[in-house]
Amino acid sequence: MPELRKDPVIGRWVIISTERAKKPSDFKVVREEWKASSCAFCEGHESETPPEIYAVRSEGTVPNTPGWDVRVVPNKYPALRIEGELSREGVGMCAMMNGIGAHEVIIETPEHGKDLVDLPEDHIAQVIRAYRQRIVDLRGDKRFKYVLVFKNQGQNAGASLQHAHSQLIATPITPKRVKEELVGAKEHYDHQHSCIFCDYIEQETKVFGERLVAETAHFVALSPFAARFPFEMWILPQRHSADFTYIQDDEVVDLAKMLKLVLGKLRVALDDPPFNYLLHTAPFRRPRAGYWATIEEDYHWHIELMPRLTSVAGFERGSGFYINPTPPEVAAQILRETEV
Amino acid sequence: MPELRKDPVIGRWVIISTERAKKPSDFKVVREEWKASSCAFCEGHESETPPEIYAVRSEGTVPNTPGWDVRVVPNKYPALRIEGELSREGVGMCAMMNGIGAHEVIIETPEHGKDLVDLPEDHIAQVIRAYRQRIVDLRGDKRFKYVLVFKNQGQNAGASLQHAHSQLIATPITPKRVKEELVGAKEHYDHQHSCIFCDYIEQETKVFGERLVAETAHFVALSPFAARFPFEMWILPQRHSADFTYIQDDEVVDLAKMLKLVLGKLRVALDDPPFNYLLHTAPFRRPRAGYWATIEEDYHWHIELMPRLTSVAGFERGSGFYINPTPPEVAAQILRETEV
Repeated sequence: MPELRKDPVIGRWVIISTERAKKPSDFKVVREEWKASSCAFCEGHESETPPEIYAVRSEGTVPNTPGWDVRVVPNKYPALRIEGELSREGVGMCAMMNGIGAHEVIIETPEHGKDLVDLPEDHIAQVIRAYRQRIVDLRGDKRFKYVLVFKNQGQNAGASLQHAHSQLIATPITPKRVKEELVGAKEHYDHQHSCIFCDYIEQETKVFGERLVAETAHFVALSPFAARFPFEMWILPQRHSADFTYIQDDEVVDLAKMLKLVLGKLRVALDDPPFNYLLHTAPFRRPRAGYWATIEEDYHWHIELMPRLTSVAGFERGSGFYINPTPPEVAAQILRETEV
Repeated sequence: MPELRKDPVIGRWVIISTERAKKPSDFKVVREEWKASSCAFCEGHESETPPEIYAVRSEGTVPNTPGWDVRVVPNKYPALRIEGELSREGVGMCAMMNGIGAHEVIIETPEHGKDLVDLPEDHIAQVIRAYRQRIVDLRGDKRFKYVLVFKNQGQNAGASLQHAHSQLIATPITPKRVKEELVGAKEHYDHQHSCIFCDYIEQETKVFGERLVAETAHFVALSPFAARFPFEMWILPQRHSADFTYIQDDEVVDLAKMLKLVLGKLRVALDDPPFNYLLHTAPFRRPRAGYWATIEEDYHWHIELMPRLTSVAGFERGSGFYINPTPPEVAAQILRETEV
């Protein structure tokens, strides 16, 4: 019998197919070949991107020249524009704003052909520090409410370039998905006086364990109870923290270790699948009156990692109701047992 | 400057790229070749499907034999199971139900290789009547709260068989997306004492017109103000009605005409793209106390039609915030001007 499972945070229902659970070999991973040439993100091609905003560089090197490990530049084809005042307008009964925002690319390595998982842990830590630095900087811009950091790897996951990179989009509104989490977390806190994510981590590590993928000193990786996608994973800090930018440096190093571990497991278990990951952290400004008072207490930042093994069809699009052919317990066991 | 637009019903924000708006020729439609052979949905192969639940048949023909125009059968690989009592269970802090539901296939024609748009209007009307008949029948099952009718055409839209078919899934909960519409419609009604969809149709047909695609005697097809996808369209009845099953027969005939028209326009304008459509109608049971009293007044059934021209990447998945490269005004103009 399949199961209907409800995400405890946002209340989204998922159909979990428990019979004939799909194993890694059942998925036909769609992968297109990249042209194996250098690109604007490669070392020596710095002039082909807009000028850099941030970089981890060897001492004595000059911005927009070689000598960097991680480099952040504006997206050449941004979804939103950084220049201008934010303006709002009604169009009949509909609301509109001009598309003010920031859209940046975090180039994770100067070397073409290396993926994030191929980098040493201390290099991945530099990528994580770049995420933090850019969010802190953009938070100073009063026009923005949120920065979403995300990574698309593989064409089937929406990447348009092979060279390893993440992106961020700063928006003048808090994304709906994050708002839903804030609302769910607040409701739980109002009832229980505890963080729903902390309670969830406690349950998954101490009570059940079957959906756990990995634990490090400061982080836990698990396949969520109501996983939308096969082999979906969440990485959560064990220490309660609403805001990713308050991450401590030993936690950065440990998160790098965790990312390398779970991305390595994904690569081995699923033959290097395309994937997306996203960082969900607290928004900059209070979403509603009286709410901010507790957001530090009730919310918990985390990373959601979603391999692209299935396509989202009409039913999912129209219902917001996902069908996941691999129970998270099966996925977690396979990932736990995958040696990297 | 791009625009941020808010859907007036559910409050979902969309980034509309207004510069370099993508035209039909800018989309690389992914289309895999189907094996051009007959299949279990073909006339003469009736024994290869589970026994039929409903069919439009020539007089004197016997169920599960040739002689039908439209045929409804249980899905051989259902996402949910029809047999059993609905049971609920808590798993720690998480909620679960057993996967009770119905999953049926509406085979639209006995002829392999014909798409819905290729059928005569009176045949399409029979398909629409099959949708209605199945919803009415399943409504009698007290375990279900909702029936979602949808169609995936093309492998890239999630279809696993070429033979023209729609599907329906009956669920013991009302899908999240529909609930969001019900909440938005109720809020509007509480303030305005009018149906938000009726007001929206009025605005789009009488005030603006630039997002209008087609009008028939009883229906309007438009590209929504905050369209998530390029060339997305909604088909709405001009007469206020919350519940699709109350459609009148002259409206069925007119809806068939409208479907053939807009699907024909899509095929011509976008080189026969893969697409999904979904029917959003009122749920069977009241979603919350006191709510049902007005659902007939505040909700408005409709069809959402989404060509598959772009893939949903990490940002969309993580934020619930879509990026649409084709403004709906551009899409609507192209579709309006497309002759079929």
